[in-house]
Amino acid sequence: MNDTICALATAPGGAIGIIRISGPQSLEILSHVFTKDLTQAKPNTIHYGHIVEYDAVSQHQIPLDDVLLSIFRAPHSYTGEDSVEISCHGSRYILNKVLDLLIANGCRMANPGEYTMRAYLNGKMDLSQAEAVADLIASDNKATHQMAMSQLRGHFSSELSKLREQLLELTSLLELELDFSDHEDLEFADRSKLLELTKTIDTHITRLADSFETGQALKQGIPVAIVGKTNVGKSTLINALLKEDRAIVSDIHGTTRDTIEETMDINGIQFRFIDTAGLRKTNDEVEQIGIERTIQKIKQARIVIWLLDQRPTWSEMDEMDELSKGKKCIYVHNKADLIDIHKFNPYILPLSMISAKNGNGISNLKQRIFEEAERAGLTTNANEIIVTNARHYDALCRAHSHLQRVIEGLQNQLSGDLLSEDLRLTLDTLAEITGGQITPNEVLGNIFKHFCVGK
Amino acid sequence: MNDTICALATAPGGAIGIIRISGPQSLEILSHVFTKDLTQAKPNTIHYGHIVEYDAVSQHQIPLDDVLLSIFRAPHSYTGEDSVEISCHGSRYILNKVLDLLIANGCRMANPGEYTMRAYLNGKMDLSQAEAVADLIASDNKATHQMAMSQLRGHFSSELSKLREQLLELTSLLELELDFSDHEDLEFADRSKLLELTKTIDTHITRLADSFETGQALKQGIPVAIVGKTNVGKSTLINALLKEDRAIVSDIHGTTRDTIEETMDINGIQFRFIDTAGLRKTNDEVEQIGIERTIQKIKQARIVIWLLDQRPTWSEMDEMDELSKGKKCIYVHNKADLIDIHKFNPYILPLSMISAKNGNGISNLKQRIFEEAERAGLTTNANEIIVTNARHYDALCRAHSHLQRVIEGLQNQLSGDLLSEDLRLTLDTLAEITGGQITPNEVLGNIFKHFCVGK
Repeated sequence: MNDTICALATAPGGAIGIIRISGPQSLEILSHVFTKDLTQAKPNTIHYGHIVEYDAVSQHQIPLDDVLLSIFRAPHSYTGEDSVEISCHGSRYILNKVLDLLIANGCRMANPGEYTMRAYLNGKMDLSQAEAVADLIASDNKATHQMAMSQLRGHFSSELSKLREQLLELTSLLELELDFSDHEDLEFADRSKLLELTKTIDTHITRLADSFETGQALKQGIPVAIVGKTNVGKSTLINALLKEDRAIVSDIHGTTRDTIEETMDINGIQFRFIDTAGLRKTNDEVEQIGIERTIQKIKQARIVIWLLDQRPTWSEMDEMDELSKGKKCIYVHNKADLIDIHKFNPYILPLSMISAKNGNGISNLKQRIFEEAERAGLTTNANEIIVTNARHYDALCRAHSHLQRVIEGLQNQLSGDLLSEDLRLTLDTLAEITGGQITPNEVLGNIFKHFCVGK
Repeated sequence: MNDTICALATAPGGAIGIIRISGPQSLEILSHVFTKDLTQAKPNTIHYGHIVEYDAVSQHQIPLDDVLLSIFRAPHSYTGEDSVEISCHGSRYILNKVLDLLIANGCRMANPGEYTMRAYLNGKMDLSQAEAVADLIASDNKATHQMAMSQLRGHFSSELSKLREQLLELTSLLELELDFSDHEDLEFADRSKLLELTKTIDTHITRLADSFETGQALKQGIPVAIVGKTNVGKSTLINALLKEDRAIVSDIHGTTRDTIEETMDINGIQFRFIDTAGLRKTNDEVEQIGIERTIQKIKQARIVIWLLDQRPTWSEMDEMDELSKGKKCIYVHNKADLIDIHKFNPYILPLSMISAKNGNGISNLKQRIFEEAERAGLTTNANEIIVTNARHYDALCRAHSHLQRVIEGLQNQLSGDLLSEDLRLTLDTLAEITGGQITPNEVLGNIFKHFCVGK
């Protein structure tokens, strides 16, 4: 924490590249490689000049780049330390050279997430807010952005601090009981109140822990299985869904989205489409394995699209119901282009008509998928707190089990000092989330190693 | 030029993304989407706050991102206009949304190079300096960086302005001659001086034009052909050369260099290694075509590495000399690991001993390659002006041919007013380079369309 760190904060390859420096020596080190002395520079000001390198052969300062420097002074910076951001031309050669030069003059290359870790250690944000920074950078749709932004702005932290207050109240009530422990009647009267309060807190914690499933679905994409018989058009449907999306995505020049091709935004929510093998009765062993996998995939899905190209029999419908029990189902009739709609006898199921081939009905289907996600409680709004981080989920689950022991103890008339211990554990466990307790270095290392360098 | 433009100036994907705004409405538009009013903000200051979006459903301003704004005021900005740089979290979703929001509030998406074009049109730099900006961003080694930086700093422009002064002097001497054209004796005396001056200028222009070949070699990599018999180890040598290099390259986390794998830096100069088919006497037609290609590649190369694994015969040496006439040659004996050095009778050729397999001698060979490039005049120093741009080269060539007509005219006693016309054309042609003449929109469009968006 006493050294000065540097790193590239932007992706390489743009018109501009930003190098970030933070630490007590920032302005001094920079003054060695810049055309002006910056040690007296005012905070929040911008300075134009050259980064220069001393050339031993010509014995001259050789300009490496034309840059703009942004000066920040402790404690009013992101990290809470003296900091400088150098806006360079985005040449990889220049950026590498400037970093080399800074390191030669006393900087150290920053570790992943080290700026944000310093911000946390200097009290600029709590640990869950620090984690939200990485989530915010990774957010690629409205839902993940909203969840990360809410967490960064401290909504989750303030929810936790309310829980902490209630737990402290519980603790002091328990201490009060201990003081009056001679009066047996009083104790019993208080205990029912205590039990009620504890259960309220536990409900709150459980609700937060339960939101993790939604958080995961929103982060990784809500799983939607597309199921149907062989040749009913499942892949064509996925392509039709993705095709519409792809036209929307490329707002920024030069960006491509060639990673996980089977995910897609609908109204700012990410869905993950799972293509499955065709379902049909078979004696073939290999094919049977494929069908078993399909059944597994249906189990993982939150929404199941049953793709049909003819009216199912009653027994087939029973099978479909059985397979997708507890899932939100959408029944879709594909190949609508081959049907004379006037002669068509609609099914009893609430059915969408599409033609995956020519794209008819795809927009309506997307709206249906979004509505099913809403019905499943899988959408988000700015006021709702959704836990998205596995570390937080784990702490909430442990806090819940500590609190369960408090509840059992209260019900079994355990003495107050035994209950106090479990209450303290609940408080400590919740404090892990925001880092209110001293956090071991190992834990910090694990949290920040997933950040990008430069943040 | 009256509208306000915006674009992402960094590559998407980093911790930070910078959005640039430039134009008369910059501060006004930004005030609509930022938590503070910026219309009175002082130049070269940094402001912290939120980019907010109005949500019609909740009727609230919803924060989109925590940002830092850098404020620049006309004329003291890159473009010479009011400008703002928004430092956002590097999420693609956020960057897209902020751009959408700016456009909804009156910005227009910038065209490639439009910031630099505005800088040129507002007199912040001349045209050859503007072109150097793109070269600087693209520079990926010491040589290309040095050439771009020198051009950006106006060394080429000031060289051209010296030429312009000399041409103007020539013009006025010619006018003087016209004034005294009654005195025939005087005219002749002046003409030899004029001829001398014109030739000096022409030599200067020719030298600049000739440097283009070096500029191209440095920009694209100096071509080095590796030639030898089948199975002598040509590919192993290329791999050995590249392997050493690759360990050096990855200074910045997350950068990969998987584009043109056969180029490599040696002492800051880029070399382009050309693997060739094995040379051997053959009657096979297909193989003969391969050998013809090898001969073509040798012609394109500036440096030829002859890779041997046994002593060539005298007639083979004659063939080698014939094939690589006019090239810098390096004779390399591979498979040194298989030779008992004490028993080895060295060739008459100045020979490098290497083992491409175990890497012995590779560092020495690289130094040899660099020295041959130096001997061929293909290295650069900060004081030398090297033309790297095809547009500049074309203008210099045309200026040279105009001046050739002046020289011929002077030698053939043509009248002063005819010579003046060619001199004027020479001046105009040179002025195209820096854009001193009014440059047609079409030409400007061609120049800036190769820039990245955001610069």
